[in-house]
Amino acid sequence: MKTINLDIQHALFFAEKQYEALEASSVEALTTLEKHTGAGNDFLGWLDLPKETTSELVARINATAKRLQENCDYVVCVGIGGSFLGAKAVNTALADNFEYYYAPNPNEPKVLYAGQNISEDYISELEKLLTGKRFGIIVISKSGTTTEPAIAFRILKEKLENEAGKDAAKDLIVAITDEKKGALRTLADQEGYETYIIPDNVGGRFSVLTPVGLLPIAVAGHDIQKLLDGAANMAQTVEHPSPENPAQTYARMRNALYQSGKKIEILVNFEPKLHYFAEWWKQLYGESEGKDGKGIFPASVDFTTDLHSMGQWIQDGERTIFETVLSVAKPAVERRVPSDEANLDGINYLAGKRVDEVNKMAELGTQMAHVEGGVPNMRIELDRLDEYTLGQLIYFFEFACGVSGYMLGVNPFNQPGVEAYKKNMFKLLKKPGYEA
Amino acid sequence: MKTINLDIQHALFFAEKQYEALEASSVEALTTLEKHTGAGNDFLGWLDLPKETTSELVARINATAKRLQENCDYVVCVGIGGSFLGAKAVNTALADNFEYYYAPNPNEPKVLYAGQNISEDYISELEKLLTGKRFGIIVISKSGTTTEPAIAFRILKEKLENEAGKDAAKDLIVAITDEKKGALRTLADQEGYETYIIPDNVGGRFSVLTPVGLLPIAVAGHDIQKLLDGAANMAQTVEHPSPENPAQTYARMRNALYQSGKKIEILVNFEPKLHYFAEWWKQLYGESEGKDGKGIFPASVDFTTDLHSMGQWIQDGERTIFETVLSVAKPAVERRVPSDEANLDGINYLAGKRVDEVNKMAELGTQMAHVEGGVPNMRIELDRLDEYTLGQLIYFFEFACGVSGYMLGVNPFNQPGVEAYKKNMFKLLKKPGYEA
Repeated sequence: MKTINLDIQHALFFAEKQYEALEASSVEALTTLEKHTGAGNDFLGWLDLPKETTSELVARINATAKRLQENCDYVVCVGIGGSFLGAKAVNTALADNFEYYYAPNPNEPKVLYAGQNISEDYISELEKLLTGKRFGIIVISKSGTTTEPAIAFRILKEKLENEAGKDAAKDLIVAITDEKKGALRTLADQEGYETYIIPDNVGGRFSVLTPVGLLPIAVAGHDIQKLLDGAANMAQTVEHPSPENPAQTYARMRNALYQSGKKIEILVNFEPKLHYFAEWWKQLYGESEGKDGKGIFPASVDFTTDLHSMGQWIQDGERTIFETVLSVAKPAVERRVPSDEANLDGINYLAGKRVDEVNKMAELGTQMAHVEGGVPNMRIELDRLDEYTLGQLIYFFEFACGVSGYMLGVNPFNQPGVEAYKKNMFKLLKKPGYEA
Repeated sequence: MKTINLDIQHALFFAEKQYEALEASSVEALTTLEKHTGAGNDFLGWLDLPKETTSELVARINATAKRLQENCDYVVCVGIGGSFLGAKAVNTALADNFEYYYAPNPNEPKVLYAGQNISEDYISELEKLLTGKRFGIIVISKSGTTTEPAIAFRILKEKLENEAGKDAAKDLIVAITDEKKGALRTLADQEGYETYIIPDNVGGRFSVLTPVGLLPIAVAGHDIQKLLDGAANMAQTVEHPSPENPAQTYARMRNALYQSGKKIEILVNFEPKLHYFAEWWKQLYGESEGKDGKGIFPASVDFTTDLHSMGQWIQDGERTIFETVLSVAKPAVERRVPSDEANLDGINYLAGKRVDEVNKMAELGTQMAHVEGGVPNMRIELDRLDEYTLGQLIYFFEFACGVSGYMLGVNPFNQPGVEAYKKNMFKLLKKPGYEA
């Protein structure tokens, strides 16, 4: 199978010296990761998920998905952070751009998301949508006490029990949580929900290839075995240090650029379906590296849309950015630019070309313009948007993130800063134990 | 009417000296803007839109909107940059979060967007959705030759003419374009489309209160007179220099922070409906200020969602950011956290509270945590999400942007860098005149 391709030639010359100097560091970081000898090494379970996820687990997830598909018009995934972004990223990448506008078909429920915010309007409007509809809930939380999903789950569980009855409701709720402990584990066992386990050694932002991501992706109708196969293929590609290792190269290049004064990395797509993949990537890199007063600021744009908004800044603003482009080689559908006799809009020179050819020339033209304007450019080419390729890309970015974080000198697997706002919020809300 | 409220107390002490020193500069910039004596002063038509937009124009826009509403299930707005983001921002802020999932009702068409990208999948999937449906097109382009909307319009026009017949199609297409010249003006006059004018003295990113934004907003069922009224109210609030002028204060504070080393501004919302408002804001500030090697990098987050992704970086990463929070005082719907006897999730301390109260404490807790972590915080409170308040907010940010750009020493009304990728693309595609 074709793998993703990383091209750093348009970034290298901005920081060649730093890149050269970082070879040993990149080998060391990769080895530290592979040998589990670095900081946070009790959170490296994600390294082995592609090969250790059994066909029995995949079959059980697919069976659960089928049951929810058959009994629901809407399936609401309740989770936040890594319990939201992985599934949302893959499901958006694989969906029709206008999927929302189609009514649910038998056995093809719509996957919705809740518990990823505390908006009163959002949850109220979701309740309104679900009223009178067949719906199920996938609730995802290691502890079961995280505020956002806990509130959403209370509200939705109450609604489902009121409308479907408590007995039927328990078969429409699936919990993904800790194996043994925690509020959601206790509740799920008491109520008799089907459950899946979030492994102890996999952090939220690395959990998309656990049931946390796999079940919502399967419910949306996608092939999770292919996702795992793609990840397994990438695991083999990146496991050994080498100047050709794409994950090592990406980690090394971005650290070289950071050392040379490039403080912001913009993940670029030319295909709007990848919008939420960038959101997933922002959590992965922002949460792994943004600590101890350092870390590249991860941002993202959808091009060419945002060439008409952020394009000016990128071209001519502070010279502190570099960009990493996700380019999809093959669109799913073929459409050519129509000819028009009058040619008033002057685009007959494009007539007969595929729309994607214009998109690709926009991409190339942008690369040339940005490089000329002082913006280093890395390019990752994906063959197409399918489960296998996304599996490769997920594992690529996860592995590179571990390497990159070690090169930066941080623990890429903790997130101490995420607690700060929660502690204040608990105090303000007078949560028992936080009143002082 | 209540106005929006700007609070800078949690930003001021990070850059008090710079803020003090910028008083004269902020007065001078505001006066330059008001007196039309600065760079780009032939693009200041937006300053007077709220008071100069006649009730006749509003009535005609509403009549056109009504005609489209009565004859369409879907109305596709074809445009990019300022011809996309303003309408998208307002329509998203005023819509139900799950509006997509409801089928079009009689006289309530869905507003869709095209021509804001060159994705072959996007346009193909849009065609699929529209097949067999009643649809209309609002095509928005000053010149009519911008590549993205030109391609989308060719494809959609051909489809509409094929399905509805050429005669019926012309009554379902509205063009918003130059008064006299350009490809779209010529085409519209030839075909007999209804047209609206994009004034010569209003740039794309300042055009939401022209028909460019007003017609798509009216088609979506919103009250454009109230939007203009809110903007007119804000125009009066900000027109004179004063230490209490909120637009002047915002411009002055962000320049003070920039001078003190804060290079990234994050526009924060706690209400997902404001997601696209932030995209509009990013164009407004990025395109106005990102030039001559300077300018604050505009980014955005949806909280609390992104506290679980970008939160770590913001709390503990490089200390080069500040944030500006959009806080909506009153949600549209009331929902309280249910009580639960077992209280396994431990959130009974929230039972009976409005969900929004928790959201507000998350906001306050985040502000405290970020300020403590070295992130200056400005806060803009909106009364509620309605047309009037959004009109205020739009004018506030536009006016502040003009002041801020002048303080920075750039021409905030041009965008020379946007052409660079286009020229390369035209060469690559062998556009006549660009082959060399």
